[in-house]
Amino acid sequence: MAHIPIQPGLPGITGLLEYRLDSAKPIRELTQVLMRGESTLTFAERELIATYVSFLNECTFCTRAHEATANALFENTTIVDSVKWNVYNAPISEKLKALLIIAQKTQLNGKTVSKEDVENARVHGATDLEIHDTVLISSLFCLYNRYVDGLASWTPEDSGFYQKLADRLVNHGYMGTTKPVVHEE
Amino acid sequence: MAHIPIQPGLPGITGLLEYRLDSAKPIRELTQVLMRGESTLTFAERELIATYVSFLNECTFCTRAHEATANALFENTTIVDSVKWNVYNAPISEKLKALLIIAQKTQLNGKTVSKEDVENARVHGATDLEIHDTVLISSLFCLYNRYVDGLASWTPEDSGFYQKLADRLVNHGYMGTTKPVVHEE
Repeated sequence: MAHIPIQPGLPGITGLLEYRLDSAKPIRELTQVLMRGESTLTFAERELIATYVSFLNECTFCTRAHEATANALFENTTIVDSVKWNVYNAPISEKLKALLIIAQKTQLNGKTVSKEDVENARVHGATDLEIHDTVLISSLFCLYNRYVDGLASWTPEDSGFYQKLADRLVNHGYMGTTKPVVHEE
Repeated sequence: MAHIPIQPGLPGITGLLEYRLDSAKPIRELTQVLMRGESTLTFAERELIATYVSFLNECTFCTRAHEATANALFENTTIVDSVKWNVYNAPISEKLKALLIIAQKTQLNGKTVSKEDVENARVHGATDLEIHDTVLISSLFCLYNRYVDGLASWTPEDSGFYQKLADRLVNHGYMGTTKPVVHEE
C-alpha cells in the first residue's frame, strides 16, 4: 500500500500524477519535451536511457513500464536486456553506448561524468544537445524513480498491465490526454 | 569548464536553463509550484529540504544557492548548518525533522522510506500532502543536482554571487521572470 491515499487501480506514477495535478502538469510537459520532442535521438533510444536509469535505481515500476515501451519501439525485445547485462557488449551503436555511460554516471552522481566520457561520446558522433538531453533524461528518471518508490506506490506484477501502459506511451506520449491505464484485478 | 557550451557568466543551473528553454519552462514551473505554491510548509522549510538534499548529493552550487535562500527566509544562519551536522539535534520542530528524514531516504533511494518513517511524520503532525511534497521536492533536487554536476556547469566560489541569487529566489521565485543573475569577474 502506498504511503499516502492514492485512487484505487492506479499503480506506480499514474496514481501520483492524479494525486497532485498542478505538479503533475509540468512533470508531464518536461517528459513530453525530452522523450517525444524533436531530437536526433530516436524515441526508442530515449526510452532505452529511461529504462537503464530506472533499472540502476532499482525502480521496478518504471523499469518495466519503459522496458515494455522501448521493446515496442525497437520492435525487438533483446536490446534492453543486453544493455542491462552489459552496455559494452550490447547490439547498439558506439554513440548510444557512450551516452548510456553518461546516463549511468549521472544516475550515480553527476560529478562522476568525466571529460573523457563526454569526449568519447563526441568521438562517436554525439552532439552537445544529445549530451545535454542524456544528462537531463537521466536526471528526470532519477526524479521519477524516487517519487514512485519514496511514496511506495503500488507495483503490479502482471506483464499485461505494462503492455497496456507501453501502448499508451507509444501512441499518445506523456501528456495524459487519454484516460490513465487502470489496473483491473 | 562545463561539458557543453554555456553562455559566459551564467554559472550552475542558470546557464543550463538558458541553454534549452523548452525543457527549462516546465522545470521552472514545477519548482515554483512546489517551492512557492500554497502549502502548510513555509518557504524556509521547503528551502531547507532542498538544501539538505543538495548537500547529501554533494552538489556545491545547489547547496550554496539554497542555503543562502533558506538563511534569508529563516532570518537565521544557524538552522541549515545544524541540520547538515545532525538533523536530530537541530533547532527545528519534530515534524520538520521527520520530513527531513523522509527527504534524506528519498535522496538515497525511494525504497528506503519506511512505513515507520511516514508514521513518525504523521505522529508529529505531518499531512499526506506534506509527505507527498517532501518526497517530490527531494526527487526534484535529485534531478537538479545531477543536471548541474552531470554537465559540470561552473560553480563560483565567492559568496556574493550566492547572496544575489538568494535575493532573487526570495523576491521573485523560480519562474525566471527577471534577468538571470550574472556572475561578474
